[in-house]
Amino acid sequence: MRKIGISEIEDIAMGAALLGAGGGGDPYVGKLVAIGAIKEHGPVTMLDPEEVPDDALIVPIAMMGAPTVLAEKAINGGEYDRLYKMVKQFFGREIFAFMPIEAGGVNSMLPFAAAARLNMPIIDADGMGRAFPELQMVTFTMGGMSATPMALTDEKGNTVIFETITNKWTEDLARAVTMSCGGSVSICLFCMEGAMLKKYAVKNIVTRSEMLGRAVRTIKESAGDPEEIFLAATEGIKLFKGKITDLMREVRDGFNFGKVLLEGIGEFKGSTAAVEFQNENLIAAVDGEIKATTPDLICLVDTETFIPIPTDALKYGKRVLAVGLKCYESWRSEAGLELVGPRYFGYDTDYIPIEERVR
Amino acid sequence: MRKIGISEIEDIAMGAALLGAGGGGDPYVGKLVAIGAIKEHGPVTMLDPEEVPDDALIVPIAMMGAPTVLAEKAINGGEYDRLYKMVKQFFGREIFAFMPIEAGGVNSMLPFAAAARLNMPIIDADGMGRAFPELQMVTFTMGGMSATPMALTDEKGNTVIFETITNKWTEDLARAVTMSCGGSVSICLFCMEGAMLKKYAVKNIVTRSEMLGRAVRTIKESAGDPEEIFLAATEGIKLFKGKITDLMREVRDGFNFGKVLLEGIGEFKGSTAAVEFQNENLIAAVDGEIKATTPDLICLVDTETFIPIPTDALKYGKRVLAVGLKCYESWRSEAGLELVGPRYFGYDTDYIPIEERVR
Repeated sequence: MRKIGISEIEDIAMGAALLGAGGGGDPYVGKLVAIGAIKEHGPVTMLDPEEVPDDALIVPIAMMGAPTVLAEKAINGGEYDRLYKMVKQFFGREIFAFMPIEAGGVNSMLPFAAAARLNMPIIDADGMGRAFPELQMVTFTMGGMSATPMALTDEKGNTVIFETITNKWTEDLARAVTMSCGGSVSICLFCMEGAMLKKYAVKNIVTRSEMLGRAVRTIKESAGDPEEIFLAATEGIKLFKGKITDLMREVRDGFNFGKVLLEGIGEFKGSTAAVEFQNENLIAAVDGEIKATTPDLICLVDTETFIPIPTDALKYGKRVLAVGLKCYESWRSEAGLELVGPRYFGYDTDYIPIEERVR
Repeated sequence: MRKIGISEIEDIAMGAALLGAGGGGDPYVGKLVAIGAIKEHGPVTMLDPEEVPDDALIVPIAMMGAPTVLAEKAINGGEYDRLYKMVKQFFGREIFAFMPIEAGGVNSMLPFAAAARLNMPIIDADGMGRAFPELQMVTFTMGGMSATPMALTDEKGNTVIFETITNKWTEDLARAVTMSCGGSVSICLFCMEGAMLKKYAVKNIVTRSEMLGRAVRTIKESAGDPEEIFLAATEGIKLFKGKITDLMREVRDGFNFGKVLLEGIGEFKGSTAAVEFQNENLIAAVDGEIKATTPDLICLVDTETFIPIPTDALKYGKRVLAVGLKCYESWRSEAGLELVGPRYFGYDTDYIPIEERVR
């Protein structure tokens, strides 16, 4: 158990944006919401999963929708009260703690805002260890857990409770409502008891985000080559370094789809690279050869500051370092790849672990 | 209080299809479902609204979606159990009775199927006195009532509960889910206490449907001109008689949209007529002059049998009598016309009562 205040939030936001692999929304927007709530209500208590009683009700809280839209819509805080009441009424019992469902600029931060406002603790765990675009894409689905009952609310006050026969149905129905509500909403889903949390969650991911964020923040204070320090601190695999020369992007079916083309700089001069995304970066190729695919993390960071760049903040001319990170081990299982492997997203390639692809 | 058995159902289905004004789905499909349930579980008790205690919980039950899709999807009965449990759990109290929300081939019948299966009484009332395409279009909206909490389920077992800030939001969110569920779902909405029912419902509409249905059924046994008997029995205003020469129809945004063109026969020889619809017939013009608009009822019936023809059963070459019926008085108020008048549906014309238009 420890307290998360404003300085911790700064580092967590930065590290989570890296783990967001291009998705999970703008870390700046998420950070502002969390810091605002902590300034008003005080630091948040964060619990290690092992500190949670087996029968305690744990409630993941997140936003659903295209990150681009998210940044344009206000979050007024009333969402958390409504979600809290909906879940409590549905289960007819007290909520023990909130938790994030994914790592990312916004979805790592909003649970802290909710926890601060409602004076609830938060658990140091999530269901992805990164960000993914669809809500069934969590370790809990591999554990056979239902995403529902799922509570949804928009900033205007509309609320919806879903109970579905599969988690893909939850995704489809909730996505339809999200789009009707203007493109982004607040949700609680995969509500679970402590025992399930301990069995299936990606543990200590908030702490990992914080360490990664601190590493990025302190690079300029360290002696040595900044890029090497960054890669060592993040256990990152360098995929490419280049300038953005082309950028195709569209918001469709509630997602940010797109592709970014890079022209090599430094040791990659003369080469080109392409990264495709659906909210998150999904596949990266250099000179036509695939170098990394989902579920491994493909992260684009600024070549000077190493600050992660979400897919919706990519801009023509920007110089980026493309880094690959190994995904959470469970995603490499057959069940994991069925949920989030390259073929699910329509890429005609088998999953090959990033460390083998770049060997 | 009286019992509704199979012969009553036959007449109610026929009369309700007339009041459906082209919408509300195929009376044959609805009738089969209701008769199947009554054969299995026995007749249904129907109560007059005045027999309902002021604090009793009354639950309208209906299908939502395009009638064309409705006819293609199976209704397996499990929907009613799920809706019953959802509503009962939400309110934490017993349901006193079901009721229909609109008149129409399917939505007048399904509440009887549900009532028979769950051994519940039904109320002789609805919220429209006809059919309309969108769910906020009920007398209860004029009474300031919320459509929500609204329960929704599909035939596969997915369930959703909505609570919205306006009834138009209920329509938008539920319509999005309906489309994601394949185009038609079962719903409970405008759950209300007996006092509200007595104040705002269209009373004795089931009995009126039954009388209209009986009138159509017995025309051929009566002496005199069948068309005159039909018009007298239904208090119908003859708008046109003709052969269908053109038919445009599309399923879009969860609705059946379309337009039917008629070439005059009999006393209308040499004239043409056009009827436009969104699930229900909305506007009828003869030789370019508007003869009737929503909320008055525009009904197309077979010229020989006087059986009403839903918009999704219209066919090239069919001979039809276009009949206008006066709508329920409240729809002619300012609040009523704002909800269901011609301008709401995009027609640039004021509402003029049908009896004045044809004078």
